[in-house]
Amino acid sequence: MNIIDLIEKKKRGQSLTKEEIAFFAYGAAKREIPDYQLSALLMAIRLMGMDREETVQLTLAMAHSGEMADLSAIHGIPTDKHSTGGVGDTTTLVLVPLVAACGVPVAKMSGRGLGHTGGTLDKLESIRGFQTDISTQRFIAQVQSIGCAVVGQSEDLAPADKVLYALRDVTATVDSVPLIAGSIMSKKLASGARAIVLDVKTGAGALMHSVEESIHLAQTMVRIGEDAGRRMIALVTDMGEPLGSHVGNALEVKEAIDVLAGRVQGPLLDISLELGSRMLLLGGACRVVKEGKAMLRDKLESGEGLRRLAQMIQAQGGDPLVCEDVGRLPQAKVVQDVPAPFSGYVHHMDTTGLGSTAQGMGAGRRKKTDSIDHEVGFVLHKRIGDEVKAGEAIATVYARDYESSESAIRQIQRDVVITPEKAPPSKLLHAVVSAEKIERF
Amino acid sequence: MNIIDLIEKKKRGQSLTKEEIAFFAYGAAKREIPDYQLSALLMAIRLMGMDREETVQLTLAMAHSGEMADLSAIHGIPTDKHSTGGVGDTTTLVLVPLVAACGVPVAKMSGRGLGHTGGTLDKLESIRGFQTDISTQRFIAQVQSIGCAVVGQSEDLAPADKVLYALRDVTATVDSVPLIAGSIMSKKLASGARAIVLDVKTGAGALMHSVEESIHLAQTMVRIGEDAGRRMIALVTDMGEPLGSHVGNALEVKEAIDVLAGRVQGPLLDISLELGSRMLLLGGACRVVKEGKAMLRDKLESGEGLRRLAQMIQAQGGDPLVCEDVGRLPQAKVVQDVPAPFSGYVHHMDTTGLGSTAQGMGAGRRKKTDSIDHEVGFVLHKRIGDEVKAGEAIATVYARDYESSESAIRQIQRDVVITPEKAPPSKLLHAVVSAEKIERF
Repeated sequence: MNIIDLIEKKKRGQSLTKEEIAFFAYGAAKREIPDYQLSALLMAIRLMGMDREETVQLTLAMAHSGEMADLSAIHGIPTDKHSTGGVGDTTTLVLVPLVAACGVPVAKMSGRGLGHTGGTLDKLESIRGFQTDISTQRFIAQVQSIGCAVVGQSEDLAPADKVLYALRDVTATVDSVPLIAGSIMSKKLASGARAIVLDVKTGAGALMHSVEESIHLAQTMVRIGEDAGRRMIALVTDMGEPLGSHVGNALEVKEAIDVLAGRVQGPLLDISLELGSRMLLLGGACRVVKEGKAMLRDKLESGEGLRRLAQMIQAQGGDPLVCEDVGRLPQAKVVQDVPAPFSGYVHHMDTTGLGSTAQGMGAGRRKKTDSIDHEVGFVLHKRIGDEVKAGEAIATVYARDYESSESAIRQIQRDVVITPEKAPPSKLLHAVVSAEKIERF
Repeated sequence: MNIIDLIEKKKRGQSLTKEEIAFFAYGAAKREIPDYQLSALLMAIRLMGMDREETVQLTLAMAHSGEMADLSAIHGIPTDKHSTGGVGDTTTLVLVPLVAACGVPVAKMSGRGLGHTGGTLDKLESIRGFQTDISTQRFIAQVQSIGCAVVGQSEDLAPADKVLYALRDVTATVDSVPLIAGSIMSKKLASGARAIVLDVKTGAGALMHSVEESIHLAQTMVRIGEDAGRRMIALVTDMGEPLGSHVGNALEVKEAIDVLAGRVQGPLLDISLELGSRMLLLGGACRVVKEGKAMLRDKLESGEGLRRLAQMIQAQGGDPLVCEDVGRLPQAKVVQDVPAPFSGYVHHMDTTGLGSTAQGMGAGRRKKTDSIDHEVGFVLHKRIGDEVKAGEAIATVYARDYESSESAIRQIQRDVVITPEKAPPSKLLHAVVSAEKIERF
């Protein structure tokens, strides 16, 4: 088989066979195919597309290019959740302990990657002592004993995706539905969970800008998972503004603890319940979403969710007392309010801008080798539709120094757009996509 | 400027600016842009196209990425001719001395490249002592003194094209009209000629399979040249069968000498006169094609063309006596006839197959480092439409040994297709493309 023939075929819009896709994916993983040929093929895929069967085969080949985690020792249906990435979105920390408390094992392998704020691993690492680099054996044992674990992905997880993702990032071939779906799902399939709930973000600040594009991506991933024998549901949720009010690593852990302690309600809890109830559904713990939500609320109110989080933190070497005293999380040196520049209503937010602000403060990485300041970030006090008065605090920044704080204040004043007209609050849940149907809201 | 932004733009089907194209071409020449980004951009260009202005700018940037030959010291209008490559096509050796004899200076820089048979340089090097590696200064002096020179391209000619062509070859991005036109024309512009006649081959064995595609390529190249201030004409000629009867390096030199000596007529002479008369037209030596053809025939009949070839051979260190005695050219060890396997008419020929046969015998290179057997090849005794009788010699092979000869015989018997029905002879000239118009024949 010759890679030039494969590029030629895809360039002409023809479908690649299972064998051809495997040749390409394994050749990428083993670094046997030069980057310049891989990137020509990626551009041909970006422009000519891939059909359902090709996308499934690419995903399976990338998954099988490295280690496939075997979670069969876990009782029940090991369940995972994945988000395509949002700002101030810490549903994982809220729903993992609640779902586990309801009896569905949550076996979550997370990537670190780049982003405006750190990933789930970075958030958890803001808890003193917390370990994410854990062997598969210990990972399985922890899920069996306390029902949940959130660990880093093995170095050998889907190596073909690692190679291809790095190339896509520098060749303008990121925005391809089959390639995005293949990248996400190859890692999910290799991680071994039997049921997967996906949170596909939509809006100007998300990977997919329109609801219909997001539904298409969601459907592509659901089909891949189902074709590979997984139970799948995808939710399309809004990224018009941060989901929670807290943006930053330790700040988001604090917010998750506040939610689990019953001190905070709102969109973060609402979407956590939407996602968590689908995990219970796929995990076989309930028969309808409403029942699942009630179970989760029950575990929240009883304090069982927060206790489960403390157990998980302890099992992974972290300080479980943060769950009782959020003051034990790292604290920023400089704390300043962000005054509203004028009176009116919050009309919309530039979530990409807010993400960049957090990244600029040190909450996220620009390069893989960057380190993270766990304590920095900001808390928004207003949501879209809220009334504000000039000078009122619309947010509070938590910075490493005054220079960084002043800069963040100016950016937040620009990114939170205030107008004289009242805007309607943004919708949280746009669609639920399963193998059988698409429900739009 | 960032190469990822350029790839992004082209991927979305937008036009690149002059500055962006220069950034890309010079970045390629200086090896500052990694191959994986160049190949992604090449695939985006292949699939999304380039408009006229972009194609011109790419060609100019590739030409200016290296040395630009200055031929202004040459009196008159230095004229060049370029063919997109055919089998048994040695028009250059026929027309260069004839055109020079009519007073138009022919300053031809040739590439070596890969191919079924060697290029013009390889053919000339089958003449003992002939030098093609000549300085620009000596090249100009020779054109001034005897009116013509055929030399190798400088190492520093259009280095951006060298880099991009090597990548296109291994990323299935050869078949793009703007990239083909840019590659050919960048080298022609850098070679310094003021007038250029192009011979665009068409047919199953050529780069462009259909006449309309060939006309499109011809028109693209004519426009580039005109926009860059050159006088341009392109002919679209047939590659349904070899143009001359001789295929192979020394054999093609022999055929050119036979034509110039007046011993041989036919398609090779006809197309040489078509091309040569356009060179006279662009070079200002005649006002209509008919007049140009008469001038060339005059130089042929007087023997002035052959004398001019001998002068050129002598000036470049070769043995000029080959022009009087073709027996001084290298001779093959094994000479065998190819009997017709059955009676009928020559219906068509697989020119790609015939080219591969010559290459397999040692007449052409598969890799750049391959050496060439100048004396090998074959002579066809029949053209499309000719009647043949079983056992009659349809060709004669000139081989290095019996094994190679027997293999070539079997391949020629397969490539020259004989059927019971008489086929019409193939058309030689399909179209003439100038800045003003397209004439179809």
